[in-house]
Amino acid sequence: MNSSKIKKPELFNEGNKKIEFAEMHMPVVMKIRERFLREKPLDGVKISAALHVTKETAVLIKTLSVWGANIFLSPSNPLSTQDDVAASLAKIDNIVVEAWRGMSSEEYFMAIKDAANFKPDIVIDDGADLHITLHEEMPKIAEKVIGGNEETTTGVIRLKALEKENRLLYPVIAVNNALTKFMFDNRYGTGQSSIDGILRATNILIAGKRAVVAGYGWVGRGIALRLKGMGARVIVTEVDPIKALEAVMDGFDVMTMEEASKIGDIFITATGDIDVIRAEHMLNMKDGAILANAGHFNVEVSVKDLEKISDSKEEIRENTVKYTLRNGKHLFLLGEGRLVNLVAAEGHPSEVMDMSFANQALSVLYLINNKGKLEKKVYNVPSDQDQYVAKLKLETMGIKIDELTPEQVKYLESYK
Amino acid sequence: MNSSKIKKPELFNEGNKKIEFAEMHMPVVMKIRERFLREKPLDGVKISAALHVTKETAVLIKTLSVWGANIFLSPSNPLSTQDDVAASLAKIDNIVVEAWRGMSSEEYFMAIKDAANFKPDIVIDDGADLHITLHEEMPKIAEKVIGGNEETTTGVIRLKALEKENRLLYPVIAVNNALTKFMFDNRYGTGQSSIDGILRATNILIAGKRAVVAGYGWVGRGIALRLKGMGARVIVTEVDPIKALEAVMDGFDVMTMEEASKIGDIFITATGDIDVIRAEHMLNMKDGAILANAGHFNVEVSVKDLEKISDSKEEIRENTVKYTLRNGKHLFLLGEGRLVNLVAAEGHPSEVMDMSFANQALSVLYLINNKGKLEKKVYNVPSDQDQYVAKLKLETMGIKIDELTPEQVKYLESYK
Amino acid sequence: MNSSKIKKPELFNEGNKKIEFAEMHMPVVMKIRERFLREKPLDGVKISAALHVTKETAVLIKTLSVWGANIFLSPSNPLSTQDDVAASLAKIDNIVVEAWRGMSSEEYFMAIKDAANFKPDIVIDDGADLHITLHEEMPKIAEKVIGGNEETTTGVIRLKALEKENRLLYPVIAVNNALTKFMFDNRYGTGQSSIDGILRATNILIAGKRAVVAGYGWVGRGIALRLKGMGARVIVTEVDPIKALEAVMDGFDVMTMEEASKIGDIFITATGDIDVIRAEHMLNMKDGAILANAGHFNVEVSVKDLEKISDSKEEIRENTVKYTLRNGKHLFLLGEGRLVNLVAAEGHPSEVMDMSFANQALSVLYLINNKGKLEKKVYNVPSDQDQYVAKLKLETMGIKIDELTPEQVKYLESYK
Amino acid sequence: MNSSKIKKPELFNEGNKKIEFAEMHMPVVMKIRERFLREKPLDGVKISAALHVTKETAVLIKTLSVWGANIFLSPSNPLSTQDDVAASLAKIDNIVVEAWRGMSSEEYFMAIKDAANFKPDIVIDDGADLHITLHEEMPKIAEKVIGGNEETTTGVIRLKALEKENRLLYPVIAVNNALTKFMFDNRYGTGQSSIDGILRATNILIAGKRAVVAGYGWVGRGIALRLKGMGARVIVTEVDPIKALEAVMDGFDVMTMEEASKIGDIFITATGDIDVIRAEHMLNMKDGAILANAGHFNVEVSVKDLEKISDSKEEIRENTVKYTLRNGKHLFLLGEGRLVNLVAAEGHPSEVMDMSFANQALSVLYLINNKGKLEKKVYNVPSDQDQYVAKLKLETMGIKIDELTPEQVKYLESYK
Repeated sequence: MNSSKIKKPELFNEGNKKIEFAEMHMPVVMKIRERFLREKPLDGVKISAALHVTKETAVLIKTLSVWGANIFLSPSNPLSTQDDVAASLAKIDNIVVEAWRGMSSEEYFMAIKDAANFKPDIVIDDGADLHITLHEEMPKIAEKVIGGNEETTTGVIRLKALEKENRLLYPVIAVNNALTKFMFDNRYGTGQSSIDGILRATNILIAGKRAVVAGYGWVGRGIALRLKGMGARVIVTEVDPIKALEAVMDGFDVMTMEEASKIGDIFITATGDIDVIRAEHMLNMKDGAILANAGHFNVEVSVKDLEKISDSKEEIRENTVKYTLRNGKHLFLLGEGRLVNLVAAEGHPSEVMDMSFANQALSVLYLINNKGKLEKKVYNVPSDQDQYVAKLKLETMGIKIDELTPEQVKYLESYK
Repeated sequence: MNSSKIKKPELFNEGNKKIEFAEMHMPVVMKIRERFLREKPLDGVKISAALHVTKETAVLIKTLSVWGANIFLSPSNPLSTQDDVAASLAKIDNIVVEAWRGMSSEEYFMAIKDAANFKPDIVIDDGADLHITLHEEMPKIAEKVIGGNEETTTGVIRLKALEKENRLLYPVIAVNNALTKFMFDNRYGTGQSSIDGILRATNILIAGKRAVVAGYGWVGRGIALRLKGMGARVIVTEVDPIKALEAVMDGFDVMTMEEASKIGDIFITATGDIDVIRAEHMLNMKDGAILANAGHFNVEVSVKDLEKISDSKEEIRENTVKYTLRNGKHLFLLGEGRLVNLVAAEGHPSEVMDMSFANQALSVLYLINNKGKLEKKVYNVPSDQDQYVAKLKLETMGIKIDELTPEQVKYLESYK
Repeated sequence: MNSSKIKKPELFNEGNKKIEFAEMHMPVVMKIRERFLREKPLDGVKISAALHVTKETAVLIKTLSVWGANIFLSPSNPLSTQDDVAASLAKIDNIVVEAWRGMSSEEYFMAIKDAANFKPDIVIDDGADLHITLHEEMPKIAEKVIGGNEETTTGVIRLKALEKENRLLYPVIAVNNALTKFMFDNRYGTGQSSIDGILRATNILIAGKRAVVAGYGWVGRGIALRLKGMGARVIVTEVDPIKALEAVMDGFDVMTMEEASKIGDIFITATGDIDVIRAEHMLNMKDGAILANAGHFNVEVSVKDLEKISDSKEEIRENTVKYTLRNGKHLFLLGEGRLVNLVAAEGHPSEVMDMSFANQALSVLYLINNKGKLEKKVYNVPSDQDQYVAKLKLETMGIKIDELTPEQVKYLESYK
Repeated sequence: MNSSKIKKPELFNEGNKKIEFAEMHMPVVMKIRERFLREKPLDGVKISAALHVTKETAVLIKTLSVWGANIFLSPSNPLSTQDDVAASLAKIDNIVVEAWRGMSSEEYFMAIKDAANFKPDIVIDDGADLHITLHEEMPKIAEKVIGGNEETTTGVIRLKALEKENRLLYPVIAVNNALTKFMFDNRYGTGQSSIDGILRATNILIAGKRAVVAGYGWVGRGIALRLKGMGARVIVTEVDPIKALEAVMDGFDVMTMEEASKIGDIFITATGDIDVIRAEHMLNMKDGAILANAGHFNVEVSVKDLEKISDSKEEIRENTVKYTLRNGKHLFLLGEGRLVNLVAAEGHPSEVMDMSFANQALSVLYLINNKGKLEKKVYNVPSDQDQYVAKLKLETMGIKIDELTPEQVKYLESYK
């Protein structure tokens, strides 16, 4: 298709290599791709997808494409497009790409609108910008949509708000809520990639350092576990006493940020709330302390406060800015307080996206197969699909597990 | 009170020492005891409790007693009474105890009936035998009960069945469902005490051994974690692919019991299902393999199968029986396949019971304070009570945690 | 032989069962036993052994016996004899046992003397009392000894002192110095059994507790690792800055005992020095703190100081004494400050003794095979014997390892 | 000095920033620098140093320079120079730098010769090229050298060979042998940076992967520990049965490379020997397996074999080459089989070099202070210097440790 709008078509080859490497680490999607390859279950189906244009997304999009779908791919963020991957996808007949790294805000929303105007049967989204655009600006098109998927917590919240007001125009599968997604990407994906981001940004030795993790949700416990695994002495801060207690029982020190701020060498926030590390804490910190954020928004470390108490700042390594405080001490802020695993490293490894995108692909099939049977609601991923993804993942790792005997099934049932 | 029926009143002193030691390790109950001490909130309240008569239970019962209640204590199991503790409690004015180690079945049910006939305002139970007796045999008494607590999963299931049929005669708090109970006792309590049981029964070196844990629920993951912490090479078996995948991501080997049975040195079941280790597995096992169970019922390791394939058996250490199989190999069964942490060690440490019994005490207050306001349903522990217990626990450990600032509260709310 | 002096010959059967269980967990000694079984390499050899009369020692002694030796077994400590094991060994024709639990000091030294008067060709000792007796009181007999083994650090130090003064009368193999002994028994054996001892003595929950380990030698790091594995928050104290730094890099908190004494819940000493925990520390401690020792002598926790600052004491569980301090707080001392793994648990598991006693058996053969070729010195275990023991251990665990190719051997040599 | 030969003097500013960041993470060198700052202990001393020209080396060189020394800095490897750091150092008056990234072999040896011709009082070397050049080509100059340091194992071996033949012309301190060097840089430095290198090269998820570590020396156990800490299922291969047994007791699976090659996802060699992973193993491997080396030389993974059994190869990410084998499978080789932590990451973090270079600086002082008193031998770092470095390190981390009381010292002495 010649209607693609991309920036560096010449990087096509680079893109292909990246995608091929990703395919090797996304065996679940590849297995699913193959399984339905011959029956072309999406023949004639039009899909608009607003996703980060990365090598992993390419593996999903190519899967939908070889199943017969026509696809319009727009980005889910103006900065996250990998131009070589975009170039590679744009070469494929039934795929239109409108995405490049460094789009302006106008260009980004134009791409979203173009994706909506593609008149899709199925809508795949990551953050719900496309869903919302369809609902608010093109309800006529939206009404004809068979169904949609949503990848993120934020997106699901926005769509549930619509549902509550009875304004949702098509059924949506909350891919985000699959156990095989959220239990794995936060803990194992963000856990590892946050360490990776800190190392790439600073090359510090983690062993022996006092690392302070704010928040003991899925992300926080993933990070705490990996920091411990690298030899750090980990301190957890929490506002929820039950989670705080779990952290203690897991062998971590727990204290207030007030106390932790005096002794920490590295601070990582993962709370989902604002101003977790504030001026009052920064002023306590040791000379040379490092600040990073692993939460979704760059509001957890108060950069505003940091600027306010500083005399000057200077980038001393890529993604590492040294702030000289008025009290004479220095603090190092990584990636401007944005998600350190995305800014300073490469975000989720392919293996993590594998399960999430397997759920995407299967949810598209589910929507098609249940066309007309679903209400205009936000649905969780069907539990057997969730199980199926986990099963395939195990299979691709060469792992077999037990099955219940008929007697065991009976016992469990009688018990209930 | 002279109406107590116990066996060894002369052990009163021993019992006191034990209770005192438990009090030292149950600071949450002690804090709660003290907080309401002066107001005597249970003045005039009659409580029947069917609980394992242990030092930890004594700490709870004494708490209710100093709050003013009159208490009738019957056992929740014919074998679990500590006679010295019973002797100690029976010395207290407003407590009647009818419990001794080794009661016959008749004696046990007589004690339950006597507890019912005590005409309690509040009923505390561990397994629901007392609740059921009241409902089925003495509905007149039951109708006057203000409310009850239930400590176990099994008991809650039985009571929910009653609720479903609209036959529940008073409101019940499912203490079992408190996060501060089930998330802690299974993982940290059973996790540790199962290792303890295996060591007391066998004194084997765990480091370097291949330990097979069947089931990766709360109990299974607690045991797997502790075995890893003692240097074992841990294998997990599961039937649920999602849990299996978590086990892999947590760094454990996962395989079928068929495969694991050939290489394991120690096997521990924690599945809640029957016949997890069967003859077919036992015949695969290495000479000298050790079999233990940490699940609630002694059905997980098929003792029947083991007997069937054996030529002879012999107790070689307390709680360790050597089976000589017809194939010439030997297997060691711990504690007859019953809960190894209870049979060969001492069950939950006091610290674990602390939170569970704090919930018991607070739930009694809640029932009294909400007299007449609750429906005849099974209620979860109020979430703020759950949080409060965790908070007290942290306090008693000398741990302070953060509180949300008004801005943070606002941000979280706006987000939703 | 009827000359054995034991206390409970009727326990013969019990002893047999214990020994059989030990044999199952000492596969290396059993393999070595079998390998030389037919050639009877000790035919006509007289051996005097002063060892703890335990089931593991029995496996060694029986091995020497079936190889043809005549053996006289005396204890290495008046309290450590297991009477059932002694009964079992005394039934064997070519073994004389003079040992019972609770010997008086006189009886103990008489047994040592009788062992010396046995006129042994080979002397096996654990602590060097027998070696020293031979050297100091019966030099005539000592001069005819072919050689000896010594199991402990203490014993080796005493014998090296003799060697230095040219007073050693026969060659001695320092079995203690085998890598397959000291690297394994301290770290993995004492590491596990100290946890075991604490649990049996107190049944406390380790998870979440602050555990203070004094000393980061082999024993200390074994204990620290296992405590961490059980969920404790571990603090290490050290006097050697290099070891202290290792502890930090391994993720432990390190501080002075002065600081640690204020926050610890459990204290375990493993330093080899006196007065590691003194009055000044005890007075800092939290109410309810637990004190235990894992070092060889009961001098590390100053019991003298504890007595001095206490008003009263009371045993509240087996091996747990509650001290009430004049400042009103309570401290719990385990096993009177003696080795907590021996007093409150069962010391080294058989698997750990397996390697040590394999070295014993092989060293006896080495002495016989090199009769007349060795100088009157203290020798280390031959390195190939050490390797051989490790190799057998791996084999018995079903583990195969790589061998160097000729090219690899050549490369390594050329490099040097 | 204008005689410096560098490539990019304009990067002076960049270099300064890097050095400043390194200074912040090398507090031990900085403390030592400050302590002797006023007395200018190297006033008039000429030093030739052949070291990797990195930011950490700059911290050392600047330290020697502010102590008054005149320094000639040549590289220890043609590829390891950071041009910005060289530019920064060249700006300093008493420092001559002759180093740039990508020197030819001739240029490299010319720099070494120029360093020798500087007629140094003190020689600092990393690999012994400069020491050897002085001994073999300029003995006249060598004879006037007061003493030298050597940073590496390889260098120490070469110098000990000279010593053995009585050809060593000045005393040398084997900085490499300091406990505060080799025990820390291999385990904690290479352990972490190898993980870092693998992540930067591949961005794979480590959790759940089967990682095979060849060799369980200091480097191997560091890597194994960190891989476990990241959630991998770790397999160790070894040729030494004692180390193999330690690995098992530490909870790792141990097997032959033959077996491991069939199931591993990632392979990392750390043996110091050639051809650890050969064609026979590669042919066994799973499609997509990853090969990396952490040993000093690129001989451990046989690249020759890999080339031989492959049809084609292609770089698919920086430092990741995909080999397509004739059997159709693909293997990924990282960094051409060279040290993955240096090639794909940044080698040792500054914190690790801190201790090593503190030893360098102190050893220079030691040589100066003991001028004329030392023999022409290879000396270990004085033990009190080693302790002192550890002590300073702890201090800079804010950690205080205990000191022996006089009574404790006495007890320890009496014991010996």
